[in-house]
Amino acid sequence: MIDVAIVGGTGYTGSELLRLLAGHGGARVTQITSRSESGRKVAELFPNFWGRTDLVFSEPEAGALAAADVVFFATPHGVAQSMAGDLLERGARIIDLSADFRLRDVATWEHWYGQPHQAPQWIEAAVYGLPEVARTAIAKAQLVACPGCYPTAVQLGFLPLLEANCVRADGLIASAASGISGAGRQAKMDLLFAEVTGSFKSYGVGGHRHLPEIEQGLAQMLPAGTPLSLTFVPHLLPIARGIHATLFAPLLESGLDLQTMFEQRYADEPFVDVLPAGRLPQTRAVAGTNRVQIAVTEPQGRGTAVVLVVEDNLTKGAAGQAVQCMNIMFGIDEAEGLRAPALLPYG
Amino acid sequence: MIDVAIVGGTGYTGSELLRLLAGHGGARVTQITSRSESGRKVAELFPNFWGRTDLVFSEPEAGALAAADVVFFATPHGVAQSMAGDLLERGARIIDLSADFRLRDVATWEHWYGQPHQAPQWIEAAVYGLPEVARTAIAKAQLVACPGCYPTAVQLGFLPLLEANCVRADGLIASAASGISGAGRQAKMDLLFAEVTGSFKSYGVGGHRHLPEIEQGLAQMLPAGTPLSLTFVPHLLPIARGIHATLFAPLLESGLDLQTMFEQRYADEPFVDVLPAGRLPQTRAVAGTNRVQIAVTEPQGRGTAVVLVVEDNLTKGAAGQAVQCMNIMFGIDEAEGLRAPALLPYG
Amino acid sequence: MIDVAIVGGTGYTGSELLRLLAGHGGARVTQITSRSESGRKVAELFPNFWGRTDLVFSEPEAGALAAADVVFFATPHGVAQSMAGDLLERGARIIDLSADFRLRDVATWEHWYGQPHQAPQWIEAAVYGLPEVARTAIAKAQLVACPGCYPTAVQLGFLPLLEANCVRADGLIASAASGISGAGRQAKMDLLFAEVTGSFKSYGVGGHRHLPEIEQGLAQMLPAGTPLSLTFVPHLLPIARGIHATLFAPLLESGLDLQTMFEQRYADEPFVDVLPAGRLPQTRAVAGTNRVQIAVTEPQGRGTAVVLVVEDNLTKGAAGQAVQCMNIMFGIDEAEGLRAPALLPYG
Amino acid sequence: MIDVAIVGGTGYTGSELLRLLAGHGGARVTQITSRSESGRKVAELFPNFWGRTDLVFSEPEAGALAAADVVFFATPHGVAQSMAGDLLERGARIIDLSADFRLRDVATWEHWYGQPHQAPQWIEAAVYGLPEVARTAIAKAQLVACPGCYPTAVQLGFLPLLEANCVRADGLIASAASGISGAGRQAKMDLLFAEVTGSFKSYGVGGHRHLPEIEQGLAQMLPAGTPLSLTFVPHLLPIARGIHATLFAPLLESGLDLQTMFEQRYADEPFVDVLPAGRLPQTRAVAGTNRVQIAVTEPQGRGTAVVLVVEDNLTKGAAGQAVQCMNIMFGIDEAEGLRAPALLPYG
Repeated sequence: MIDVAIVGGTGYTGSELLRLLAGHGGARVTQITSRSESGRKVAELFPNFWGRTDLVFSEPEAGALAAADVVFFATPHGVAQSMAGDLLERGARIIDLSADFRLRDVATWEHWYGQPHQAPQWIEAAVYGLPEVARTAIAKAQLVACPGCYPTAVQLGFLPLLEANCVRADGLIASAASGISGAGRQAKMDLLFAEVTGSFKSYGVGGHRHLPEIEQGLAQMLPAGTPLSLTFVPHLLPIARGIHATLFAPLLESGLDLQTMFEQRYADEPFVDVLPAGRLPQTRAVAGTNRVQIAVTEPQGRGTAVVLVVEDNLTKGAAGQAVQCMNIMFGIDEAEGLRAPALLPYG
Repeated sequence: MIDVAIVGGTGYTGSELLRLLAGHGGARVTQITSRSESGRKVAELFPNFWGRTDLVFSEPEAGALAAADVVFFATPHGVAQSMAGDLLERGARIIDLSADFRLRDVATWEHWYGQPHQAPQWIEAAVYGLPEVARTAIAKAQLVACPGCYPTAVQLGFLPLLEANCVRADGLIASAASGISGAGRQAKMDLLFAEVTGSFKSYGVGGHRHLPEIEQGLAQMLPAGTPLSLTFVPHLLPIARGIHATLFAPLLESGLDLQTMFEQRYADEPFVDVLPAGRLPQTRAVAGTNRVQIAVTEPQGRGTAVVLVVEDNLTKGAAGQAVQCMNIMFGIDEAEGLRAPALLPYG
Repeated sequence: MIDVAIVGGTGYTGSELLRLLAGHGGARVTQITSRSESGRKVAELFPNFWGRTDLVFSEPEAGALAAADVVFFATPHGVAQSMAGDLLERGARIIDLSADFRLRDVATWEHWYGQPHQAPQWIEAAVYGLPEVARTAIAKAQLVACPGCYPTAVQLGFLPLLEANCVRADGLIASAASGISGAGRQAKMDLLFAEVTGSFKSYGVGGHRHLPEIEQGLAQMLPAGTPLSLTFVPHLLPIARGIHATLFAPLLESGLDLQTMFEQRYADEPFVDVLPAGRLPQTRAVAGTNRVQIAVTEPQGRGTAVVLVVEDNLTKGAAGQAVQCMNIMFGIDEAEGLRAPALLPYG
Repeated sequence: MIDVAIVGGTGYTGSELLRLLAGHGGARVTQITSRSESGRKVAELFPNFWGRTDLVFSEPEAGALAAADVVFFATPHGVAQSMAGDLLERGARIIDLSADFRLRDVATWEHWYGQPHQAPQWIEAAVYGLPEVARTAIAKAQLVACPGCYPTAVQLGFLPLLEANCVRADGLIASAASGISGAGRQAKMDLLFAEVTGSFKSYGVGGHRHLPEIEQGLAQMLPAGTPLSLTFVPHLLPIARGIHATLFAPLLESGLDLQTMFEQRYADEPFVDVLPAGRLPQTRAVAGTNRVQIAVTEPQGRGTAVVLVVEDNLTKGAAGQAVQCMNIMFGIDEAEGLRAPALLPYG
């Protein structure tokens, strides 16, 4: 039984980790930290844990954290950078759900996050935690940088096309939509129920922090030097959970058997379902699960591939993927703790 | 490993049974029937089961059903009545989620459901499947009649007060609200998204079928002959799942320690949480779970007890309670398959 | 054409006043104040006003305000108290949408609002702005205290029963539910979309500020000295707008013709619809309107009257009622600016 | 005062016409037909009209309809075709909200709608009712074919770019999302609240009936013979009303002043708001109104124009546009009946 510590347990990804690990047969949460809620019972903050856990939030303390088998960071960007070095030197294994170690290029990170990187010497060691791309490296990693929610959906959607090198990669388009939990648990006017319900809008059209992360990942799927350009427009859905990505790619050749291409690429992936031709994915079908559902088609045979991808932004887009990485790192069945089907109906 | 058959698998309670049993360590679903969808894969109808089950809907057939260790009926009223006798005579154990065997009085049943009862000879044998009241009888039952969704919430909320005989039982009031899945999976105009969203209303004020069921249960908590009258007003919430019951009871004496009364009554119940004084329940905290959360108070010390109860109408209000009964009937840990905490955020 | 000033234009009731007055043939908004947004265009804060108004938020200034024909306060409690005296002495007419002048008893106000009343000398002059009860007094008032949202629904629901003196007024119960805009436009964690959606809960069960206001109003409908006690439980709906009140009253005599009693009482009221027997109200049917829809029944003839009332908490429960009062005060057709039917579908 | 007849009054566009015309100073509804609800009061079907109208549904009868100044068809496709010829020969003016006369090419219509066209001889006479493109022709038309909801948003979004001929029109992409009222008021399983809430999905990716309509309109904005190809992916939002279109177009030249281009094109349009640079539209800001809000940008200066468009699918996307056309046809102020700002908050 692995001992797990969670740093930053008051946000939605922290509580999602707790939820998933509550049903995990090979790991248990022994510490959950929060500076603001230290001393308070977890079940008081998150009423879904009444009668399910006696955990109490504690102050983060390096010695105690390093004693765990694995430390998850479910914190805003900047926090993992400030604590990771110390823990890694003490031998801890870290799974960081924040953006701190996702970008390989320090300058790019500093540009998009608007602050100096505090642990650039650890970037090299970090493994980008997308199992469908880097399973072997994850298994051996000491520091895993879990992908963002949009990047997971967009990369998995484009992956078979780019690996097959069958699209014009400088003309990629991603129109994606996220449930509002993606914005985190923060008391902001824009996130109020009365401001969000019954409406739909885009945001961050001029530039979203997930763009460089996505492009970094897509570039690695292509032959070196292939021109790549993605136009990425995120939208806000009036739902709590779920990401839907609608991807467009100009095909170099019309009429390819995209269905088979996708099915073969993901045949052995435990959490990626390529839907049968003619079916389209919906976010609720994967709510609370680590699964991704994908459909691909070339509408009217007009030379544009359309890929539809759904995931739960808090699960496969964050905490579920982190648990999947943990399972890989510790040689546990990859699906452990991640088998429950979605609620249906949901919402 | 127990073999389970589900009759009527295309509705919300049938699919909820499937979902819960997918994570059950001591039971597996071997048959799921549907006359209309016979031959179709379950995962085609319910996209949350993609990659999770290979089950195919089949025609209900008595011989095959009787070979299962237990048969669940997740059917509209009338169906279980027509099939139960045959199965029971073949020795099958039945858990009926419909209303067919809940009322002890045939005439009352026929009055509220508007049709002749087809198996009145089996009513006597049926055990009302509310474990908090009838655990011992359930353990030995061949035929369990699972309570309705409102009846579960309302009975568990009034139970400690009535057992303590501390309220005027002829002046009980229940103002309850349900998510729309309680109305079933039917193509009716009233249930359309565009007719339900952004709104709230009462329904069935003149008389709801759950009223006689609730009163039958409440009467059994009181000394024989105690006058009993409940005014029951159900409402429709613009959510998919969840029941909230707001109960009012005139206290015979003001100032009782209702908090302790409730905590003691439910101290040993695995699925009933009495919240600490000052906290109030919310439906999302129990969504998809078998748990009930209850708060009790006497506002302003004015002589009226107010009880707030939440449950998931499809889980503790239907399929979860049915699995709990199955666990009791077969000597399995009562919480098996029912331990997962609720998603949070939800919706 | 009446000149209108709005003090406190950044909340939901202020913007609702603007919306209603945009379509008013006899009044125009000439000032709208906000300390925090002074100098900013209204349409920048409220995107529904793009292309509809050139108004700019200004600092509140007594001289300018007093020059308007009427000043609306759409402010948190305490603000109107601090500014009203000055304006009233300058001859301004004031319609206060806050709680500042609703309670006749200073001590009660100070108890529930937790601060000293700043203008107790003006309480006597204030007219409680419920037109169905006080139309004549409103017409002549210099200072109108608009009722709260719950108080409007609950008082109008009980009114015919109490005036007819046919219920036991010491056993009244109100189980009411409000859309979240009733909590105002504030950046609080509890009001986040991800915390509210897909859920339902009660709040303020131990004591809500609207309770003394409601009881004050109900007492005036009864013969002096009649014992009165209301148990009031508010709930939070996952919708932006709308109040639904479910009221219970023990009848002194069963079998009264409540339908006719209600229809006669409200026959001449332009904004109160008593629905035909058998129909029940829904919040969306009055969203954005000043209308109240009411149904009344005695379920099963068991001696308890059940009244169902819907209104829009921001319109008839706040800004619409304020405009109705303004129309009465200035001799304008009472329905001016308030005739548009609700959107349907809505949400 | 113009006399208006509405054929097909039981759907969402019919009831939206009623709502808008209830506040119209120059027109009144004198007939509203429905075969299924003939003889029933409109207010019984649509509770938002309680106390607002005494209209009763009647059987459609050509003589009576032709006596109206204008006849609106708010019917499923096929109905207007079957009745229009007779009415037009009697001299009636018709505004058809259905798809019956939108496509100029009969074969294309028959292909996408799967049935023979019943009045091909009238296609030539029909004017496509998009005022921003065809105001003059609409003024003189006897038969107006109102655009579909998606086509309105998509065409208005691409219009300035195509008229300026600054994009590669054979690489257009539209990722659009609609509230569910776009699917009409029909008792279908897919449209149930419990099937739609809390989720998001695409549909009709292989081919949506609005595609040929959109392409027909876009082609007319371009020099004859310009290659044109649109990839159109519609999505379903868990809201009742609203369309959001996210449009992508490859620019022939990077760095154009798209903001000014759009502002100038729509400077004189009463219902099209080009938002200031940096602001993005949201559907709720135009709910229930005839307004369109548009933003345009070239993210990162990468050569792809992104246009964001919102409208209410039932108003500017159907009934509002129809009223706007009526105003133009009868020389009424174009904004009459269409001035009310959106509710905010909404939903």
